[in-house]
Amino acid sequence: MPTTLPRPDPSRLFNVDCKLSYTLLDDTHFLFLVHALDGMDQVVVEESLRLTPAVEHELHADAVFGHRTLRLKATAGPLTLRYRARVRLQRPLPDRRAKEVPIEALPHEVLPDLMPTRYCESDRLASAASKMFGTMEPGYARVQAVCDWIHEHIDYRVGSSNTTTTACDVFLQRSGVCRDFAHLGVAFCRALNIPARLAVGYARFDTPPPDFHAVFEAFVGGRWELFDPSGLADPQDLVRIAVGRDAGDVAFATLFGPVRTRLIRPEVEQVRSRRARR
Amino acid sequence: MPTTLPRPDPSRLFNVDCKLSYTLLDDTHFLFLVHALDGMDQVVVEESLRLTPAVEHELHADAVFGHRTLRLKATAGPLTLRYRARVRLQRPLPDRRAKEVPIEALPHEVLPDLMPTRYCESDRLASAASKMFGTMEPGYARVQAVCDWIHEHIDYRVGSSNTTTTACDVFLQRSGVCRDFAHLGVAFCRALNIPARLAVGYARFDTPPPDFHAVFEAFVGGRWELFDPSGLADPQDLVRIAVGRDAGDVAFATLFGPVRTRLIRPEVEQVRSRRARR
Amino acid sequence: MPTTLPRPDPSRLFNVDCKLSYTLLDDTHFLFLVHALDGMDQVVVEESLRLTPAVEHELHADAVFGHRTLRLKATAGPLTLRYRARVRLQRPLPDRRAKEVPIEALPHEVLPDLMPTRYCESDRLASAASKMFGTMEPGYARVQAVCDWIHEHIDYRVGSSNTTTTACDVFLQRSGVCRDFAHLGVAFCRALNIPARLAVGYARFDTPPPDFHAVFEAFVGGRWELFDPSGLADPQDLVRIAVGRDAGDVAFATLFGPVRTRLIRPEVEQVRSRRARR
Amino acid sequence: MPTTLPRPDPSRLFNVDCKLSYTLLDDTHFLFLVHALDGMDQVVVEESLRLTPAVEHELHADAVFGHRTLRLKATAGPLTLRYRARVRLQRPLPDRRAKEVPIEALPHEVLPDLMPTRYCESDRLASAASKMFGTMEPGYARVQAVCDWIHEHIDYRVGSSNTTTTACDVFLQRSGVCRDFAHLGVAFCRALNIPARLAVGYARFDTPPPDFHAVFEAFVGGRWELFDPSGLADPQDLVRIAVGRDAGDVAFATLFGPVRTRLIRPEVEQVRSRRARR
Repeated sequence: MPTTLPRPDPSRLFNVDCKLSYTLLDDTHFLFLVHALDGMDQVVVEESLRLTPAVEHELHADAVFGHRTLRLKATAGPLTLRYRARVRLQRPLPDRRAKEVPIEALPHEVLPDLMPTRYCESDRLASAASKMFGTMEPGYARVQAVCDWIHEHIDYRVGSSNTTTTACDVFLQRSGVCRDFAHLGVAFCRALNIPARLAVGYARFDTPPPDFHAVFEAFVGGRWELFDPSGLADPQDLVRIAVGRDAGDVAFATLFGPVRTRLIRPEVEQVRSRRARR
Repeated sequence: MPTTLPRPDPSRLFNVDCKLSYTLLDDTHFLFLVHALDGMDQVVVEESLRLTPAVEHELHADAVFGHRTLRLKATAGPLTLRYRARVRLQRPLPDRRAKEVPIEALPHEVLPDLMPTRYCESDRLASAASKMFGTMEPGYARVQAVCDWIHEHIDYRVGSSNTTTTACDVFLQRSGVCRDFAHLGVAFCRALNIPARLAVGYARFDTPPPDFHAVFEAFVGGRWELFDPSGLADPQDLVRIAVGRDAGDVAFATLFGPVRTRLIRPEVEQVRSRRARR
Repeated sequence: MPTTLPRPDPSRLFNVDCKLSYTLLDDTHFLFLVHALDGMDQVVVEESLRLTPAVEHELHADAVFGHRTLRLKATAGPLTLRYRARVRLQRPLPDRRAKEVPIEALPHEVLPDLMPTRYCESDRLASAASKMFGTMEPGYARVQAVCDWIHEHIDYRVGSSNTTTTACDVFLQRSGVCRDFAHLGVAFCRALNIPARLAVGYARFDTPPPDFHAVFEAFVGGRWELFDPSGLADPQDLVRIAVGRDAGDVAFATLFGPVRTRLIRPEVEQVRSRRARR
Repeated sequence: MPTTLPRPDPSRLFNVDCKLSYTLLDDTHFLFLVHALDGMDQVVVEESLRLTPAVEHELHADAVFGHRTLRLKATAGPLTLRYRARVRLQRPLPDRRAKEVPIEALPHEVLPDLMPTRYCESDRLASAASKMFGTMEPGYARVQAVCDWIHEHIDYRVGSSNTTTTACDVFLQRSGVCRDFAHLGVAFCRALNIPARLAVGYARFDTPPPDFHAVFEAFVGGRWELFDPSGLADPQDLVRIAVGRDAGDVAFATLFGPVRTRLIRPEVEQVRSRRARR
């Protein structure tokens, strides 16, 4: 563990405005992950949720990470969700000289993040990862090299992947979207014995439309560092919703029923002020 | 949740004697899951662990389930582990009339066990599961029907699978070993919106050699019921080591280093006495 | 081999009218398989081809089957192809009591149709096929049972498959279109040591829109019998274009260049007359 | 097509001695491809075949390539095959400055060798091939670059692949044997619009044991050039048995029955003489 923590990024404020709209063809049970995480390296200053029509709902906080799942059951017809929040990020600057932690020194709670998961088959990519990145100097820079490789060799192409697409698929087909890029990053890292996991949240893209964003975290230098191999947004500006082992754990919406999606518009903007500028 | 819990199986005693032996070709970090679970439906009455040569080690209890991971780093040369325990099972009898719990009534903590994992791609098997079991009466009997189908259609064949084999592979190739059978059971259940997970432990087989056993649990009637689609042993007699989302979470040994495996001999026997007979 | 050939179906006439329209973004080389097969169990009475703009082209007849590939290179801009033909089918009625031919009695030239191909991985489906159909009486009826199983267990759903979808994929996902149905039929047959291949052509569907059709042929009773597991059309009425080992061999259009497809409208109609009615 | 053919390699003589031995557990039908090809760039000077026990057999020459398949049915018990031949290679030297042939100028008969097959999924590797080799100068040197990449990035490891292993699998797992290396070469070439196919035969390896060898051919400069990405032997010295679209077409033995393999020992040696030295 580092004896001195990196200097925190001057705290900054972001406004989140997320609107989701559906037409339910029958009673449907929903799990939403749209609430900004209140913990880790950010604080929810204020927030509001509006469901139209008003339906009963519950909010469950994850025991480990604290992210909050909204559960509800709605009846056939339209359903609109609007979540707004003001969130303060207090994220330390990345430590680009961080070293990797040897296996035997890894905290026990990060060991599961070395294992292969549905979308990150690090076991099947072990040999390729070893050949491509195995001889590099371990540390932050090696994870950055993984990201650079992905950014250079995988095409960002909407529609080139679907909900069953895995890191191996992406490695073969050389195209995907942000979650596919992040899954491949996670898989390569785990294959190199670097604990890694998915992080999802709100990010502002240079090119519209707004969408939920997925990046990944690698455990280097004794803490979790954010990486975005898609290069779509600065991970320092990600307003976290949740972290998980892969996209299966942290989908923004899981639906049990026949539903037509009408609108997905998760917007975020930094609040520019004298106090909270970057 | 059932208002009256099923009558517990008269408590029974088991002796575990597990011997593992390796030759390390270099320094190696190990994660072992060999300790009998002290909790849930069983109690560890006494236990001992001997490592030869004596090496420093740590025991980490899982925050959720309580299973214990043994971590150690050993140097090149031979390494032998011997774990012995006396364990009392206090497992309730299965409730064969248990009903499935509707999605909206599932406890929040079992929802992750609905999601696809590395070895249990319930998403890819959703349509097949729905066609094969979708119209059956929900409940214990439906999970039993899943087991019966697996038992009838999948061949138990040592060597027909490896560490990358998934539920989809098994469904295609129609052969596997106990963990493959259990993975397919888990995948079918999740595809039917029944939470399911892997359970591993010590079991006595009619036909040698002794080996670690894998079965699965499905969440019906408000609690986790054990199922063994391989039919190798009565799941009531399983001395649990751990539960997890799939085999990636609960491998009996995870090795970070070059190692030759010499011996895997996990034995278990019920203690027959006037007090503790079945 | 049967000593008496089944009585031929009274010969019938069909009119084919196929229109394809593209916008080429750059010079593009095309391989078209749209010409009705002049041979086997049908005769092309008359035909015409019009390319707009007029471009140089060649017609190559397959050395074995006789199907004709149209090759051409066109420059950027619009390209329209119109092929019209009058075709007489002289197809024998299926011999529903045909027996399978033992391996050692199979003609040498049909042996390649026992082997796995890109879209028909009969090797990976060998065990499933054996368990599902292995104990049935060999012969036409067994192939029909394969078709019935596919028809019952696979959903016909446009958009559920793409150009990389294989028989194994279809078996897992339980949905596909006509070529996927045919590929699965081919794979099951080969797994049962019944030579099988794809047949493509013009067929009239009860429900529009018109499209090219794919069925399969199995070698039983010493000759190739047509089967359509999709049930979309009577295979007796298929105006053949080509046969091949799988869809890779007999795509109606193979394009080497950037092209936008404007129209695919392959129509066929039986000529009703006193002489040539069914 | 080149106006002047490359100067032929001075003709050389090779002695083949192939011994195969099996124990049949029941009546078994065999397809053997062990006969040296008498055609293309080699001549069989003399040959002999001995089957023990003597069993009836047929030899079928492939209509296109001329390779000869030995078919036989043997009864339960031992079966030994010994094939000996003296073969003169008259192989032209490779033309290392050969150019690729544009799609529109490819002879019609090589077009099937552009299509994906069971073991060479060139469609799924299209994007990777294009990114890795797409900008290189088309021609012999580009195919050599494909071979060099394979040689450098794939480990030759006996036992790392099996009969279902495909080019995509090898690309992912980064290990295989000679046929896997050749399949990946074929797949990459086809993805680059270079016709490619498998060639199998007898080759002498520096390190025993003797085994059948698989290399590949790419169509450049208007003819088929041999390439061996495994680097195990000089492809100029390959005594051809057969060429085909992939290993499914040209397995040295295809068995329909329960058989134990006892011995596979295909040996080859160059005849050193004043006349026929290299």
